[in-house]
Amino acid sequence: MVLSDTIVALATPSGAGAIAVIRISGKEAITIANSIFKSVHAKDLTKQKSHTILLGHITDSARTLDEVLLSVFKDPHSYTGEDVIEISCHGSPYIQQQIIQLLLRKGCRMADAGEFTLRAFLHGKLDLSQAEAVADLISSENEATHQIAMQQMRGGFSNEIKMLREELLNFASLIELELDFFEEDVEFADRAKFKELLNRIQEVLKRLVDSFAVGNVIKNGIPVAIVGEPNVGKSTLLNAFLNEERAIVSEIAGTTRDAIEDELNIGGIGFRFIDTAGIRDTEDVVENIGIKKTFEKISQAQVVLFIHSAEEFRMAEVNLKSLQLEVGKIASKYPDKPLVILVNKTDILSPKERTNLKNMLTNVEGSAFQLISAKTGEGVEAVKNLLLNFVNTGALRNNETIVTNTRHYDALLKALEEVQKVQSGLDNSISGDLLAIDIRQALYHFGEITGEISSDDLLGNIFANFCIGK
Amino acid sequence: MVLSDTIVALATPSGAGAIAVIRISGKEAITIANSIFKSVHAKDLTKQKSHTILLGHITDSARTLDEVLLSVFKDPHSYTGEDVIEISCHGSPYIQQQIIQLLLRKGCRMADAGEFTLRAFLHGKLDLSQAEAVADLISSENEATHQIAMQQMRGGFSNEIKMLREELLNFASLIELELDFFEEDVEFADRAKFKELLNRIQEVLKRLVDSFAVGNVIKNGIPVAIVGEPNVGKSTLLNAFLNEERAIVSEIAGTTRDAIEDELNIGGIGFRFIDTAGIRDTEDVVENIGIKKTFEKISQAQVVLFIHSAEEFRMAEVNLKSLQLEVGKIASKYPDKPLVILVNKTDILSPKERTNLKNMLTNVEGSAFQLISAKTGEGVEAVKNLLLNFVNTGALRNNETIVTNTRHYDALLKALEEVQKVQSGLDNSISGDLLAIDIRQALYHFGEITGEISSDDLLGNIFANFCIGK
Repeated sequence: MVLSDTIVALATPSGAGAIAVIRISGKEAITIANSIFKSVHAKDLTKQKSHTILLGHITDSARTLDEVLLSVFKDPHSYTGEDVIEISCHGSPYIQQQIIQLLLRKGCRMADAGEFTLRAFLHGKLDLSQAEAVADLISSENEATHQIAMQQMRGGFSNEIKMLREELLNFASLIELELDFFEEDVEFADRAKFKELLNRIQEVLKRLVDSFAVGNVIKNGIPVAIVGEPNVGKSTLLNAFLNEERAIVSEIAGTTRDAIEDELNIGGIGFRFIDTAGIRDTEDVVENIGIKKTFEKISQAQVVLFIHSAEEFRMAEVNLKSLQLEVGKIASKYPDKPLVILVNKTDILSPKERTNLKNMLTNVEGSAFQLISAKTGEGVEAVKNLLLNFVNTGALRNNETIVTNTRHYDALLKALEEVQKVQSGLDNSISGDLLAIDIRQALYHFGEITGEISSDDLLGNIFANFCIGK
Repeated sequence: MVLSDTIVALATPSGAGAIAVIRISGKEAITIANSIFKSVHAKDLTKQKSHTILLGHITDSARTLDEVLLSVFKDPHSYTGEDVIEISCHGSPYIQQQIIQLLLRKGCRMADAGEFTLRAFLHGKLDLSQAEAVADLISSENEATHQIAMQQMRGGFSNEIKMLREELLNFASLIELELDFFEEDVEFADRAKFKELLNRIQEVLKRLVDSFAVGNVIKNGIPVAIVGEPNVGKSTLLNAFLNEERAIVSEIAGTTRDAIEDELNIGGIGFRFIDTAGIRDTEDVVENIGIKKTFEKISQAQVVLFIHSAEEFRMAEVNLKSLQLEVGKIASKYPDKPLVILVNKTDILSPKERTNLKNMLTNVEGSAFQLISAKTGEGVEAVKNLLLNFVNTGALRNNETIVTNTRHYDALLKALEEVQKVQSGLDNSISGDLLAIDIRQALYHFGEITGEISSDDLLGNIFANFCIGK
């Protein structure tokens, strides 16, 4: 971990925009900026106050590269805890490159991925789990992932761990103190209170460990299998969801992104729609490759949506028997997986056909149903609510801490294990020195989460997943 | 042109990055920001000094959207000349959207393309040609286009025009004064000095008008036709150029962009390489569609590169006669177009083969030649220098003003026309009132360039080509 050199990187997304921000951090940040920045408002950046902005020009000897705004942040009142300069230049990739190249020639080094945040951690501006939350925050794509990351970044998660760790540390030192006086057989640590603490710790750890299943699903998007023949309206349904989102997004030109049709944000939660080939035509051929793949995909999903089109019912291609067969195939293999039959294009049905269809669908065992029409918008909201209800996000709604990070999950599991060892040690009245070892081990895993205990390798792994410039 | 409302837009490129900048400008910018920004460092943004930065949180009632840096710029000391707030948030597209949506709910309006710069123009922070240079600067992709845009933005071009306009205006008022005293037959305007001024103006205008041809080519990239059969190494050559560039670019991760193989930056100037199908196989079929297309592409190019591979010579597929025939076809149609024969893969040749080849190529009339090898790097630099030498960029090297904007070119041409009318009017001693009309007309076209004379339509057209957020 070299902290002595001054690093530079583009902090804004690459590409052309109105402006781009180039970030410099380190001991020489202000001196280097001084050597390439000319402003009528200030002669010397070293005399500039922290958190102020200057208008001026970046010059490379006689050549003027750009007119820029330059922000000064002074150690320790900056993101990294070092002297930081941010150059807000015109958003041409060429200009960005020219300025960064100039800074490299003047003695800066290209920042590694996540190196600004790593420095913030090493200077005590953030703990490790907060630093990790920064990366999660940047990649958050919907309300749920944003909320989890924001909560973690503001320390909700690590504060809880830190407080428990401190209490545990307190008991550990008392027990280790007892070891010094072992001949006198004293008990400094109140065993009843200690048991109470261990219970409390186990409760918290269990809750956090359990939250990982929810957190992981939320972070990666909740998988929904869409089972249906081609042309029954799978993409129509996704578009119906998407159009509502688009109406919001298109209002903000410049932030519009390419529609990834199979990843949608519904009610602030990400859903991943997995298209499958359907299972109807494979009635007889059990070893069919298509049906194998469909079942593989269904096994990954949390919810299964069957889609049929109203036309199929009209043309008698689908009837109660065939529907029950299809539902049965899946229900027998995955009895706990929620199934919903969606019938699309219902706008073509006469009132009588509609009644008949509803009667038929009511009689299919093992599944719910919903009539939809992309044309009239019928049922779209209902399907959204269905999906949201299937997902257990109680924790999210109650603003509870949710663990999404595999590293935290591992450390929490290990900490829980050690705490359980301590508990059983207490129950079996094992000697204080053995107890102390297990407590130290538990403390170690707590410390891993917040970064009070960390290795260069661990830090390298964590920050390598960041983008450059953060 | 509504200036009374407060506008907002994302100023950085869309997509995920370490940070993103959201820009707000207008009367309510500070009040609106005040209503969503909480900081321990300041209670009231209206009391905040201009050009200062605050760390704090963007909150939407109870929900915290992000931890941000907020920059305050106060009217008139801002880019637009209005109160401006810049919010530097985490670079998640979701967060960007949430903050912008919140600002829209609080009373901001989405900025139109170029509206920040339009407001800067309307508040007199920039003249029109400088404002146009901002868009050019952002889209500048190499040293040449950057230099031209930078020069224009710093006023080099419009200052010259403004000064001439003022002198002309001075004479215009003297001549119009004469009209008031027409019965007394006085001459306030010194005709000799006036003629001298008109000559000076014409000289400048002619130089600027002439520079447009160069400027236009530089702005759009200098077209180079590459004529050759498949697999002779056309892409090898482009890659050889590209690799050197990549070595520079890859150093700056985050600014690496997708290689557009047929647009390359050589020595700071953009070249557009136009691939053609070759003309060899069409020796007999004159009306061949392929050859027509090739000739069409050659007609658009400034330079023609013929590529052959050393293998073709070895296998006697190409000889002096066939080469002379190919060169002759083009030279007869475009006698002034520079032609260079490139022989690729020369690393496979023995010294004797190499000598023979050189002797043969020396005897091809109407073209230069160059041996190249992507493997050994032979000739790559030489081809670059060849291309740079073919391009007349004397003006660029001498730091002269170059016109690249069609609107300016049109206005300059019209101004020149009117000035010439004035001149011939003077020569023919036409009456002062007719003279005055022509001078007014010339002044009008001058004013069009700098924006002293502008219409809403014109402004709308210019700024519609900007990106949102600038």
